[in-house]
Amino acid sequence: MIIGIDAMGGDNAPKAIIDGVIEAKKNIDAKFVLYGNKDIIVKYVNDKDIDIVHCTQIIENADKPVMEIRRKKDSSLVRGFLDLKEKKIDGFLSAGNTGAILVGGMFVTGRIEGIKRPAITSIYPTLNNGISLLCDAGANADCKPEFLLKFAEMSSLYSSLVLGVKNPKIGLVNVGSESTKGNQLVIETHELLRNSNLNFIGNVEGRDLAFGVSDIIITDGFTGNIILKLTEGLAKSFGIKLKNIFKQNPINLFCGILLKKSFDKFKQDTDYREYGGAPLLGVNGYVVKAHGSSDKKAIVNAIKYLKKYIESEMVEKIRNENRL
Amino acid sequence: MIIGIDAMGGDNAPKAIIDGVIEAKKNIDAKFVLYGNKDIIVKYVNDKDIDIVHCTQIIENADKPVMEIRRKKDSSLVRGFLDLKEKKIDGFLSAGNTGAILVGGMFVTGRIEGIKRPAITSIYPTLNNGISLLCDAGANADCKPEFLLKFAEMSSLYSSLVLGVKNPKIGLVNVGSESTKGNQLVIETHELLRNSNLNFIGNVEGRDLAFGVSDIIITDGFTGNIILKLTEGLAKSFGIKLKNIFKQNPINLFCGILLKKSFDKFKQDTDYREYGGAPLLGVNGYVVKAHGSSDKKAIVNAIKYLKKYIESEMVEKIRNENRL
Repeated sequence: MIIGIDAMGGDNAPKAIIDGVIEAKKNIDAKFVLYGNKDIIVKYVNDKDIDIVHCTQIIENADKPVMEIRRKKDSSLVRGFLDLKEKKIDGFLSAGNTGAILVGGMFVTGRIEGIKRPAITSIYPTLNNGISLLCDAGANADCKPEFLLKFAEMSSLYSSLVLGVKNPKIGLVNVGSESTKGNQLVIETHELLRNSNLNFIGNVEGRDLAFGVSDIIITDGFTGNIILKLTEGLAKSFGIKLKNIFKQNPINLFCGILLKKSFDKFKQDTDYREYGGAPLLGVNGYVVKAHGSSDKKAIVNAIKYLKKYIESEMVEKIRNENRL
Repeated sequence: MIIGIDAMGGDNAPKAIIDGVIEAKKNIDAKFVLYGNKDIIVKYVNDKDIDIVHCTQIIENADKPVMEIRRKKDSSLVRGFLDLKEKKIDGFLSAGNTGAILVGGMFVTGRIEGIKRPAITSIYPTLNNGISLLCDAGANADCKPEFLLKFAEMSSLYSSLVLGVKNPKIGLVNVGSESTKGNQLVIETHELLRNSNLNFIGNVEGRDLAFGVSDIIITDGFTGNIILKLTEGLAKSFGIKLKNIFKQNPINLFCGILLKKSFDKFKQDTDYREYGGAPLLGVNGYVVKAHGSSDKKAIVNAIKYLKKYIESEMVEKIRNENRL
């Protein structure tokens, strides 16, 4: 097995990425290929068992992924996706910009035959320190019911084959529990999901999401993006409010010091680093996006899951199913 | 001015509602009409200046508002909306079920000529202890760009005329800041808003909402409902996590006792009771929905705002504008 790694993507690149690869290599029987600027990479690693594919460009403008991917043929992302397409590597990991990874996956590596729209699956932290998978988390702003059905099928497969969830529960984001509720898209999707072989538990409302009522949360990419970013914004605003409370007076400040450890743990309660990143489903190859702020531990876990993902042969299974 | 009040709607009805009316009456120069079961109402109020319209039915099944409104002709909601239509009252306040209020407003009182879709405007609490107005908060799951433009026009008018916000800032919920981002609906709406006379500040992302970047948040009713309920669910889940921290050990428990006052204040920081409820925009009459858990203070404020709303002559202004 050959695992490709984008050495240049992510807030802590290249150090955290390379350190993660060095650590992962100790326990994982695979060959590693780093994509990035060789002059920089060799400062962090000196191991003839780790290949380096020298790339002179970096994807920087996160707002214009399509243009960046087209223009920067010698970026670590484009080179990695190309090698994935040509089967020079078995899987590819990047902690870079989500939009660029999506565009690169779709247009450089390409889609699985029969899959019209690849989707981003994101890890959504839940109250019980667990996670749900949110799909689509932002790839497809306008969706059709059959896209959402495919998202559900692919997420379900990933959840069971890679994360080891038995018969994963699938919820459809909606404004009420009845099948007749919602917009045209979800009403029709509800029907498709109900008639599928999936473990569809019905609609899930906004207020349910934080409580982990389903293993998989299915929604269009517009709503999915709003859900993710709203959650992020509310967590941040909640943190600011908490800090303000502890600054209010000396007694509160004192309590703040006593409680610091508990609150630090609270912040990290759902450790995204444990879950190994988010797969790009529907792309004709094994692509995982690690969190932008991934540290060494996160990269080690992402590599571990990417290996399991490759071993699951999920892409081949989807391809064969679609050919039937 | 005659103000109609649904005495039977809300978690604390009829006591909190009636107490609120008695209190409001002291400072407001208006006539009040209570809709509800007379036998129950007279237990709480004995004032010949407050009229009672005896109604034998109550809207109970919140999940089927259309059916309930159709069937229960003698409910406090239907009677109130009918009197509003026939101009027997100048405005109507209810703390009852949102769906039933929407359906009652639309089908019993009716829409303003030229307005295709009435919208629910909800108060969205922000970090700085202020509010934004979220519209549509759930009335219209499927929207067209021109609906959203009308929502923005009506919310803007309400914000300036009733809440006293000067030149209210309008944001469009989207997945990015650029005008080309998002689904077809928001791309087209962006164009309409940019070419309008409104104070359109552009797209607002999920992560911005909690920080009050705009006075008005415009979105379709599907997304609006998800935003509201997700916010509600996350606040609840944060609360549970906090409680768990304080239960962890004796030191934390001790801190919890010392911090109790600060946290109680924190919970109430954005006091919905100050803002007088949410107007039902686009209905041919002045309708305000008070929060379901309204207490006496909330009802007093809701009546105060309903009075301002009636005095603004906003409905007449919208009607005249649409006739041009």
